[in-house]
Amino acid sequence: MRGRTIITGQVNRPAGANVKVRTKDGTEDIRAVWFQNGSVVMIDQRELPDRVMIVSFNDYKDVAEAIRNMTTRGAPSIGATAAYAMCLATLGKCDLVKAAKDIKAARPTANDLFYAVDYMTAELGKGRDPVEAADAYAQSMVDKCTAIGEYGAPLIKDGFKVMTHCNAGALATVDVGTALAPIRKAWADGKRFFVYASETRPRLQGMQLTAWELNQEGIDHAIIPDGASGHFIRKGVDMIIVGADRIAANGDFANKIGTFEKAVLAKEFGVPFYVAAPISTFDFNTKTGEDIVIENRSEEEVTMVKGKRIAPVGSPALNPAFDMTPARYVTGFITEKGILRPDEIEKVKG
Amino acid sequence: MRGRTIITGQVNRPAGANVKVRTKDGTEDIRAVWFQNGSVVMIDQRELPDRVMIVSFNDYKDVAEAIRNMTTRGAPSIGATAAYAMCLATLGKCDLVKAAKDIKAARPTANDLFYAVDYMTAELGKGRDPVEAADAYAQSMVDKCTAIGEYGAPLIKDGFKVMTHCNAGALATVDVGTALAPIRKAWADGKRFFVYASETRPRLQGMQLTAWELNQEGIDHAIIPDGASGHFIRKGVDMIIVGADRIAANGDFANKIGTFEKAVLAKEFGVPFYVAAPISTFDFNTKTGEDIVIENRSEEEVTMVKGKRIAPVGSPALNPAFDMTPARYVTGFITEKGILRPDEIEKVKG
Repeated sequence: MRGRTIITGQVNRPAGANVKVRTKDGTEDIRAVWFQNGSVVMIDQRELPDRVMIVSFNDYKDVAEAIRNMTTRGAPSIGATAAYAMCLATLGKCDLVKAAKDIKAARPTANDLFYAVDYMTAELGKGRDPVEAADAYAQSMVDKCTAIGEYGAPLIKDGFKVMTHCNAGALATVDVGTALAPIRKAWADGKRFFVYASETRPRLQGMQLTAWELNQEGIDHAIIPDGASGHFIRKGVDMIIVGADRIAANGDFANKIGTFEKAVLAKEFGVPFYVAAPISTFDFNTKTGEDIVIENRSEEEVTMVKGKRIAPVGSPALNPAFDMTPARYVTGFITEKGILRPDEIEKVKG
Repeated sequence: MRGRTIITGQVNRPAGANVKVRTKDGTEDIRAVWFQNGSVVMIDQRELPDRVMIVSFNDYKDVAEAIRNMTTRGAPSIGATAAYAMCLATLGKCDLVKAAKDIKAARPTANDLFYAVDYMTAELGKGRDPVEAADAYAQSMVDKCTAIGEYGAPLIKDGFKVMTHCNAGALATVDVGTALAPIRKAWADGKRFFVYASETRPRLQGMQLTAWELNQEGIDHAIIPDGASGHFIRKGVDMIIVGADRIAANGDFANKIGTFEKAVLAKEFGVPFYVAAPISTFDFNTKTGEDIVIENRSEEEVTMVKGKRIAPVGSPALNPAFDMTPARYVTGFITEKGILRPDEIEKVKG
């Protein structure tokens, strides 16, 4: 990849950032992606948890490629990265119409990607400073996550056992996270509790990203196989909190495969089940969860590990990336405007 | 390992065996373990699904090692293997008291291992031919599985979607299997249906053994991540069938981690949930499932793949090998004496 630079040792700390990274020089708090000295800088999430590699790009096309190849992932982080890519295009005096098209082509489904590029095009059209506009976009997401943390933290009590799934953390949302925001805030407030992070096959974001974030923050946790969730819920979990990829107008929501099982188990055992997401995740054009199209990803994500087939030759695999959880399983949606019951969603319809 | 021989090409077919193996010379039906020409012969299950390696042993100590290192696994297969190891000890004119002790030391918890060794000691004490006695032991397990298949097959209808978990197949039980017995029989009867095999993290027995068996038999199936079970059950599964490691007197049972979640989901969606097991799996000395001790296995089974750590350094993992499913979730136990509701278990108390 062109323009890749590995930054070691010194990482400047953007204001309010809290992805903790331990370096030789101590602990730095960084974001998943930021703009610095004319470059887009990000954590290469494909290298986690083996190592924290910070990569830097000076060409918007390289940033588009970094979105495509999942150097950065998570819809809000993708949106901010796209906004910063538009900064590079502007500063490099590129054709902005072509740049917008190139960046939007990086991934097909993340709505934040299109939204962020259109936002930048509009702001640049108004003559706004590109870096200031992109930083404002990223900061807006962080502010929403911070508010989610403040609304959600009081739900977590000392001694709780909290379960989460996949990664709805700072890596996915520039900083702070959605599902991890109340967990971070409650821990920072001095509460002490325990987090079960289910590993989240097939791509293991729970093991490799969420556990990594919790470990960096020093929050008590353990990784569990997805199939062990029921065992631990039966033994005693006090609260389940997950993120969401899309929430329909009736409160049905789509999230990483494996979420729905936890919702059913939570209902069976009377465990509160919360969904943490900014209001922008609500899609009032989608009436119910049945209208959400579930992306089926490649078999190889299930049948291969590090390039080696682990399944029998001839056995197919099914790999739905998301599942849909009906609203009746949700205790509440933790948003930047407060906690909403499924029947209160209409209140925040923009 | 001493005495290891790889048999290629020719594999004699024990009567009634039906682990299908495709060889260069066509298809052979073999068992997980058998006795042939003075040797104990078995499928090296650690090599599946990459290749079918048939290994042969002439020294009982090597067979004990093959049990210890999981060349063969599954309690009934371990029992038969132990019985055959006692044959080798007898034919080799070894000290049978020492041999019995050595073989029993191979694994600590499999009740079948101790039972089979004691059975052989008793039969040999009566002057019975060792191979005939061990073959009778293995055949008895196969006969029970065959009966389980005959009782269970009528539950499976044309067009069904059936879900199973882990491996309760021929590999685990010498031949035929428990949960897979009705599936094999229904398919052999000409019914056409579809099987979801959940991969069964952390050791992937569903992906690597069950899918392999289904593939060998030509039974329509797909591997799914464990966390996708709820998605597919919500979409429409007609029946779930699993094995059991131990069934308490009240019908609570322990089986591979991930089983309990499927039972809860089955109840939520009104899907029949069956447990297939021989009567010998019922433990009337264990009153309820709460009395079943759940084995916690090493973290490394979760955090390592093929010798490489995949989890963040510093993040612990929890690895309960089994979970407990209360009897109220069970539609029926499919045994060699028929299908029993949980409240009918007392009938078969020996």
